[in-house]
Amino acid sequence: MTGPRGGEGRRLEILALEDIPEVRSGDDLPGLVVAALRRTPGALPLGPVDVLVVTQKIVSKAEGAIVDLRSIEPRPEAVAFAERWDRDARQLEVVLREARRVVRMEHGVLITETPQGFVCANGGVDASNLGPETGSIVTLLPADADASAARVRERVARELGVDVPVIVSDSFGRPWRWGIVDVAIGVAGLVPLEDLRGTPDHDGRTMRSTIRAVADEFASAAELALGKIEGRPVALVRGASFTRGEGSIRDVLMDSRFDLFR
Amino acid sequence: MTGPRGGEGRRLEILALEDIPEVRSGDDLPGLVVAALRRTPGALPLGPVDVLVVTQKIVSKAEGAIVDLRSIEPRPEAVAFAERWDRDARQLEVVLREARRVVRMEHGVLITETPQGFVCANGGVDASNLGPETGSIVTLLPADADASAARVRERVARELGVDVPVIVSDSFGRPWRWGIVDVAIGVAGLVPLEDLRGTPDHDGRTMRSTIRAVADEFASAAELALGKIEGRPVALVRGASFTRGEGSIRDVLMDSRFDLFR
Repeated sequence: MTGPRGGEGRRLEILALEDIPEVRSGDDLPGLVVAALRRTPGALPLGPVDVLVVTQKIVSKAEGAIVDLRSIEPRPEAVAFAERWDRDARQLEVVLREARRVVRMEHGVLITETPQGFVCANGGVDASNLGPETGSIVTLLPADADASAARVRERVARELGVDVPVIVSDSFGRPWRWGIVDVAIGVAGLVPLEDLRGTPDHDGRTMRSTIRAVADEFASAAELALGKIEGRPVALVRGASFTRGEGSIRDVLMDSRFDLFR
Repeated sequence: MTGPRGGEGRRLEILALEDIPEVRSGDDLPGLVVAALRRTPGALPLGPVDVLVVTQKIVSKAEGAIVDLRSIEPRPEAVAFAERWDRDARQLEVVLREARRVVRMEHGVLITETPQGFVCANGGVDASNLGPETGSIVTLLPADADASAARVRERVARELGVDVPVIVSDSFGRPWRWGIVDVAIGVAGLVPLEDLRGTPDHDGRTMRSTIRAVADEFASAAELALGKIEGRPVALVRGASFTRGEGSIRDVLMDSRFDLFR
């Protein structure tokens, strides 16, 4: 444990914030979150057991981390792969340009390591939920989602007077399992990994290798209240057990030296 | 979508059920869950937006899926690995006996595919939280956690009159990320994967490849209310968005032919 406890669990509530408008490049996202908190019944007053989860799409849009596919000239490799697997060659080109490393490119699936260090399908480049007139626009991952989270945290503290940890989330696939789940891609104000190694468990025995990815669990929990198709991009999670601290998503990313699944 | 919607999200509540006693082999777990629901303030009456999440440990213990390490004679391979990496050779032996396939065995980490088809560290064999007098006991994964979940679902329906979906959860690690998160290892009464392919998203565009692992998100969300060390093994999740149906955890497990991370 590296900081004071944020909550005790036992009873937890998740509110989808209401009436967040369509976000555009350059919008003041921290201001929109504060306004939505003020509009959502039951959200205020904020307290010491509250955590905000903001989904990637609106962060990327507000920060201008978007690409218009009409401006993209795909390389031959992307064209061939797209034709074979019914993909958009321009989107593949964007993924390849962004990639630090191509992990897999086969069977229609492109998995890359992003500049931020995430290993994910399509390098986090996403074409869904981008607005009715923006069929050729894709979002990239935020350049530094810890910083994105910190900006929301700072604005909430300044305008509403409470230091609320913030998580930026995105949907990732997993090996060996179908389906995507939301995980954290940026954090501010909380420790993303709860290191329970050496902490006596319920029976007084020592848990030797239990590190809980609490920020990822927040992201998944928030998704249950937000849904994928309903246009709700921010959740307030109240009452969960977590530890305050100046964490970074980099704490979560595993160096390949240690990754035995790789 | 394969069934009626279980909830609409937006506002979600998670209650850790209270006063579940130390579970022993042969205990009536469905009965204990019903009793805990009756004791937990706010849990009753149950409704159509409720889902129960039961953690693996008490399921395995009630079903007798446990092994006393004092009865285990480890093979030389397990002894050598244990000595090199400061592990318990008898626990490694149990993992190897249970394994359908060894995925990795190096750097102190043993990853196997279990008879149920899960790929996980130590084959899901777990030594923590087993009671003060049971230092040599480990739990195995439930033989058929779908059936375990179904038994709880049936008892709740019979005694409390409401058909509540049930998820059995366990903590798994992930490639490329530190830390464990809770995922589903058994389901009853809900569809573990929400297939949004072909479902128009918020803006009317078509989402082509979005399958959400909703049962895993329930498991992670429940963990936020249960915590790892507080001895709370069952959570009631109220108000999440999900689809009713006769799903199985086998729907989630990816055939290795499709698994590009492997």
